[in-house]
Amino acid sequence: MKSISVLKFGGSSVSTIGKIKNISSYLKNRIENNEKLVVVVSAMGKTTDSLLKQVEEITENPDVRELDSLLAIGEQNTISLMAITLNDIGVKSRSLTGIQAGIKTFGQHTKSKIADINSDYLLKQLEEYDILVIAGFQGFNENLEITTLGRGGSDTSAVGLAASIACPCEIYTDVDAVYGTDPRIYPDAKAIEQISYEEMLELSALGAGVLETRCVEIAKNYNVPLYLGKTLANTKGTWIMSNTDLIEKKVVTGVALDQDILHVTLTCKKCNPDFVQALFDQLDRLSINIDMISQILVNDEISISFTCKNTDKNFLKDALDTLKTSYPSLNHSIRTDCAKVSIVGSGMRDVSGVAARAFRILGSNGIDFYQVTTSEISISYAIDAQKSLDAVRILCEEFNI
Amino acid sequence: MKSISVLKFGGSSVSTIGKIKNISSYLKNRIENNEKLVVVVSAMGKTTDSLLKQVEEITENPDVRELDSLLAIGEQNTISLMAITLNDIGVKSRSLTGIQAGIKTFGQHTKSKIADINSDYLLKQLEEYDILVIAGFQGFNENLEITTLGRGGSDTSAVGLAASIACPCEIYTDVDAVYGTDPRIYPDAKAIEQISYEEMLELSALGAGVLETRCVEIAKNYNVPLYLGKTLANTKGTWIMSNTDLIEKKVVTGVALDQDILHVTLTCKKCNPDFVQALFDQLDRLSINIDMISQILVNDEISISFTCKNTDKNFLKDALDTLKTSYPSLNHSIRTDCAKVSIVGSGMRDVSGVAARAFRILGSNGIDFYQVTTSEISISYAIDAQKSLDAVRILCEEFNI
Repeated sequence: MKSISVLKFGGSSVSTIGKIKNISSYLKNRIENNEKLVVVVSAMGKTTDSLLKQVEEITENPDVRELDSLLAIGEQNTISLMAITLNDIGVKSRSLTGIQAGIKTFGQHTKSKIADINSDYLLKQLEEYDILVIAGFQGFNENLEITTLGRGGSDTSAVGLAASIACPCEIYTDVDAVYGTDPRIYPDAKAIEQISYEEMLELSALGAGVLETRCVEIAKNYNVPLYLGKTLANTKGTWIMSNTDLIEKKVVTGVALDQDILHVTLTCKKCNPDFVQALFDQLDRLSINIDMISQILVNDEISISFTCKNTDKNFLKDALDTLKTSYPSLNHSIRTDCAKVSIVGSGMRDVSGVAARAFRILGSNGIDFYQVTTSEISISYAIDAQKSLDAVRILCEEFNI
Repeated sequence: MKSISVLKFGGSSVSTIGKIKNISSYLKNRIENNEKLVVVVSAMGKTTDSLLKQVEEITENPDVRELDSLLAIGEQNTISLMAITLNDIGVKSRSLTGIQAGIKTFGQHTKSKIADINSDYLLKQLEEYDILVIAGFQGFNENLEITTLGRGGSDTSAVGLAASIACPCEIYTDVDAVYGTDPRIYPDAKAIEQISYEEMLELSALGAGVLETRCVEIAKNYNVPLYLGKTLANTKGTWIMSNTDLIEKKVVTGVALDQDILHVTLTCKKCNPDFVQALFDQLDRLSINIDMISQILVNDEISISFTCKNTDKNFLKDALDTLKTSYPSLNHSIRTDCAKVSIVGSGMRDVSGVAARAFRILGSNGIDFYQVTTSEISISYAIDAQKSLDAVRILCEEFNI
């Protein structure tokens, strides 16, 4: 039996007929190497923008169901053109819209989620055709309404299709791989050949703009080997896969930096034990996402440290003001100009001393940290923002990123 | 219960957002007058052309299945924009593609025919929505492939939908009505208010470019009252309906002219009786459509007259040459520069003397004819082409067209 793979090409990869032709030639080669392919494509370049411009002429608040139907046209255009191209060069190929591919969704229009995919039908079609070209970003709901999947929707379609067929998924884009850290900060950063789902999720900042966290989560849940690479490039991209499938587990795979954060420490003397609950209720009320939470109880004083986005500064003040009405002894200190630096690696589980090495190298370079938190595969440090780029470089050198 | 109508707007009627807004306002008025509407639209103005231009960049011979999928986008664009507009002005409305509307087709891609429409689903949707905006020209086949309906496809969709719902169908276009004859020939020609299906079929030349014969046939078969009129005009258009529903049956409803024909007379002395069969076999072999067939047998001489398109001249010569090898005594005379003038009217059935009046008026104006044929509701004359415009004018005046 021929192997099946799902391949996804983004909007800039299919923005012209010329590019569609080049990709089609590449796909033909793969078919001639005894493969069957499911190809997911996005709308060509600026198609979505021009559809939205039509809507702007009508209203600022379009009906979201109809907006979804309209935007689905973009991908439908690409699949037909690619299937025409493939058939023209002798590849048996068929295009499928979201409805035709049986991509059932649930949830709200413009940000629906995949509920189910009719993989039996797709496998049957793959008996007849060598390539199925499927419209990304779209599906349909129980009312037979066309839906779209929101940000990163085409990637989600691709990973969802791979999950339902139980085959690997290759995502082709402008970026040639996931790097161990942002190459703009550390130009010597190497492309990662293999990384586990968990590491990729911890390093989500590194994939930001390239691969939505949501896709990695689906791939992880259905154990879909996920490749990220540059369209029609000879360079090697990154395979994201189960930890147990990794050939070599690096101790530290990547270093991530989150620059725009606040570091908050609260102390509350003789507070009721319900204080912590009250704090989280307030944060929840104001939708403040917090990270790096540490709590210590010394004698009758509760101390809590955490970080949050700088953009939540005003919400945070609101939360603390509200809390002080119930807990007058509450004190707080907020550090702005903070950064979070994280080192991530599956190998940490098995190798001791990573934390010690990191502490030592940061200390010997005069980089203090206010807080440390650890997970099984990561260590995060809250440090001064102005020292954060140095910290990333030092850690990358130390752990050969 | 509210009355339901199907309305169809052609490509030039929806070529801009402005026009879509104007039509939407008109539809809102109708809804406020207690109607439910199914609105069928074509692709906006030049959309189809620009889609075909994309294909030209790829190949001269696109896969027809994929071409159908591609062209279906045009109508899909219009339905979403119109549904967005309608919802924006407070009309509960939903767009439906051919698949969503359950328009099942059979036959070849690019010229499929409607097999079945899921009217139960549409009626259910009309309980929830006041207007369903349905993509014309498209459907789907048993393989869940998107199909298109060929020439006059959107009109066919509209009449098919009206047939399945059992409601009237209004077709809006650039032309304000069906006229009793071509106003370019007889400027005083009046718009016809009511005409029977049979008359319309006999006068198909008058509707040429406005309404495909196929649509009239479907309307006739399912007894769908069919309106033809100008988009958003105050002028009255033409209702095409069952003969029994006509309020006033005019003796002569219209005068049609077919200018570009040949008039052929064959005589064959002592021919075998199988000669006529052999003639029709030859005409069939060369796909020559003939009209106004008369056959006479005098003693042992068979005479046949008929007309055919001027463009079939060479095929006709081929057919006659072939026949002469088997029937050496065959003689033929071919008149070029011929025209067929027809007078059509349901009232002829009940009123005698129409033929006599026509013969008299033509004769008194020095217009000779080579042949006359009649059906229950029409009389056709083969005459000299250069006298044909005069003949039309004289007949229009005589019968008050």
